Amino acid sequence: MNERLPTIRTRQDGGVLWARFDNPPINLVGPQTLISLNKLVDRVEDDDSIRVVVFESANPEFFLAHWDMTAVGAAIPAAMPSAEKILGRLPGIPKVSIAKIAGRARGIGSEVALACDLRFASAERAILSQLEIIIGALPGSGGTQMLPRLMGRGRALEALLGGEDFPAQLAERYGWINRALPDAELDDFVDRLAHRIASLPSEAIAAVKAMVDPITLPAPAELAEESERFREALGRPDVAARIGRLMQQGMQTSSGLELDFGSAAVELLTPETASAAHNPTDR
Amino acid sequence: MNERLPTIRTRQDGGVLWARFDNPPINLVGPQTLISLNKLVDRVEDDDSIRVVVFESANPEFFLAHWDMTAVGAAIPAAMPSAEKILGRLPGIPKVSIAKIAGRARGIGSEVALACDLRFASAERAILSQLEIIIGALPGSGGTQMLPRLMGRGRALEALLGGEDFPAQLAERYGWINRALPDAELDDFVDRLAHRIASLPSEAIAAVKAMVDPITLPAPAELAEESERFREALGRPDVAARIGRLMQQGMQTSSGLELDFGSAAVELLTPETASAAHNPTDR
Amino acid sequence: MNERLPTIRTRQDGGVLWARFDNPPINLVGPQTLISLNKLVDRVEDDDSIRVVVFESANPEFFLAHWDMTAVGAAIPAAMPSAEKILGRLPGIPKVSIAKIAGRARGIGSEVALACDLRFASAERAILSQLEIIIGALPGSGGTQMLPRLMGRGRALEALLGGEDFPAQLAERYGWINRALPDAELDDFVDRLAHRIASLPSEAIAAVKAMVDPITLPAPAELAEESERFREALGRPDVAARIGRLMQQGMQTSSGLELDFGSAAVELLTPETASAAHNPTDR
Repeated sequence: MNERLPTIRTRQDGGVLWARFDNPPINLVGPQTLISLNKLVDRVEDDDSIRVVVFESANPEFFLAHWDMTAVGAAIPAAMPSAEKILGRLPGIPKVSIAKIAGRARGIGSEVALACDLRFASAERAILSQLEIIIGALPGSGGTQMLPRLMGRGRALEALLGGEDFPAQLAERYGWINRALPDAELDDFVDRLAHRIASLPSEAIAAVKAMVDPITLPAPAELAEESERFREALGRPDVAARIGRLMQQGMQTSSGLELDFGSAAVELLTPETASAAHNPTDR
Repeated sequence: MNERLPTIRTRQDGGVLWARFDNPPINLVGPQTLISLNKLVDRVEDDDSIRVVVFESANPEFFLAHWDMTAVGAAIPAAMPSAEKILGRLPGIPKVSIAKIAGRARGIGSEVALACDLRFASAERAILSQLEIIIGALPGSGGTQMLPRLMGRGRALEALLGGEDFPAQLAERYGWINRALPDAELDDFVDRLAHRIASLPSEAIAAVKAMVDPITLPAPAELAEESERFREALGRPDVAARIGRLMQQGMQTSSGLELDFGSAAVELLTPETASAAHNPTDR
Repeated sequence: MNERLPTIRTRQDGGVLWARFDNPPINLVGPQTLISLNKLVDRVEDDDSIRVVVFESANPEFFLAHWDMTAVGAAIPAAMPSAEKILGRLPGIPKVSIAKIAGRARGIGSEVALACDLRFASAERAILSQLEIIIGALPGSGGTQMLPRLMGRGRALEALLGGEDFPAQLAERYGWINRALPDAELDDFVDRLAHRIASLPSEAIAAVKAMVDPITLPAPAELAEESERFREALGRPDVAARIGRLMQQGMQTSSGLELDFGSAAVELLTPETASAAHNPTDR
């Protein structure tokens, strides 16, 4: 039950379980993290002493960078559960999950946060992004389902179609996160709220979630369609080519590109578009 | 029709009916207020001279404090309609209801505001809270249904699972209220808007609401499930015990506790949790 | 295909089509603009070289003023498609539409913006309004359907029942638009984002919209009911009378009234209400 989980360090404090992502150098999410995350969700579901789980990161610059592109098209470990299953399951557990986001949460990193019940982020350091469109794909584990329900059509489409980096303050204005808090206050704020909720009756927590879940969560069929479309996209040759070009340019290896992915990646991919922009045809 | 209503003072000005909650000392909601509120809603529905109803408070510190805990488990007056019936009915009336919130609106007080079509609050004095989780229950008259539809899953769960006090500015950022306005401007703003809407054709008001209601209001079955869960919670011994401890500590009698309920109440209930927080087990 | 469109000037730049409303003096929307808009939407749908369409205005004070009241009750050109058909079709096209709003976007002007996938507005100059209630009607081309889904019940009802002018900053806080941007930055911001999205794979854009559309767009039956109610309203004698009084007072001819329509129009219509407000009956 309490086995050590590769890439996720845990610590229990009263009714609160802290789950700290720790997969150097940039907290990529790969098969090993999914296996650990699935076991962690099992533990949260089964262990009655856990009332609240808080996800945080050991890396000050990356909450979770994004899916490990070296795993795209590679053999999948037999023990690896699908990301959409894990993240589709987490919100329905009658306990409370909180994402404490300092650093970048892109792609599946944002979807891990979106699967949590509450999201708080460092005003100075957090960045959220659904970057999948940059490689020619779409989110595969809830991103297209949670964002419209949180922020409405226009803002969700901006995030999903642009693939840009959303700093914490903008993410708050759009509803991607509950609140952006000053970095100096974030730890204490989340610690206090997590323990407060953990002190309240579990029957009431379960009842509130039982009322709220049906009107806020996507249906299993919607998540299944999204993941099916995601898998189809990863099979397209142009997507493989875009991933290849980005890997050559330093994706996952250059911290400069990873730090500034939202703007840097598109520029690397589209020199031809930039020049086309200078030949407008007026009518 | 125009009988005097205990705990609610009314005044009609053109097409606008002002309904002022006045139940000293802290505007608790008990059976008498529900009986009056039900008659008031009847009057709004039946009297063609009323186009807009504005709910406000005679108490500068309390819009409506919360449900009167002395009525929990007590004999219910035969004439008392259920809160969920009254508040479930109000939004569907083809007239316009406005909550003008200065002071605290907690529990059913927040739900009265949520049942109104529009909500404006004093930036300096308004506080909103669904405090039910603190006694181990959940909202019973629409709170779990209206909040997610107004502010999305994450923020609604924060309000419902934490039971904290939300000052007006934060309530505005989250969408709990339309706007927080400077206290000095609130009365004039609401007066002007109420008379403006009252001057517009009632057929158009009814048509707008007929289009908006189906996509924004909970279904009767959802409200019924919520109130059933609320009644179940109030029957749990641990909920009675929590209410008993809070009443002993000054709930409803100490203005200090009532003014600062969101933070003070949880501290009174959970000394054991506070100490447990200092024995973390690291892994 | 590329025929010149009366009242809408187009310019293609790479994958981005710029559609500039140009119908002096105040960019009213009448049958001719609908015919042009329909042809434009056809072109966006059929021309594979177009990835993104941006709607903007040649008039610094009016994005689109509102429906041309001289066309109400007049013979409809046989070639004129219904506004609700055009605006109901635009969001479902697997390409991206952006409204760049500087100046006033009232009534159907706001609905054109709401039918776009993304909305950005000048912080200094943009004003949005669903003014239909002022003439005693309701929006007829999606306004009652899109606003509640973007901003929730309370704020949508405020906009729809009050018919007031919403300056850009307030429209942003409410979620009517994605963002209000400083006027000096708006053009570059939209230009950059439009070209960025146009550079990304069209399959991914289509897949994102296919996932987001079903959970954010109204059903055809909802749009049909709204337009039916709108047509009914325009047939009411009191609506014709209100339009007549406003036209006499300078609607569509006085730039002063059109610039400040949200507040000026109601005052022109309701002197009797203003005086009634001074005879309150206290109880």
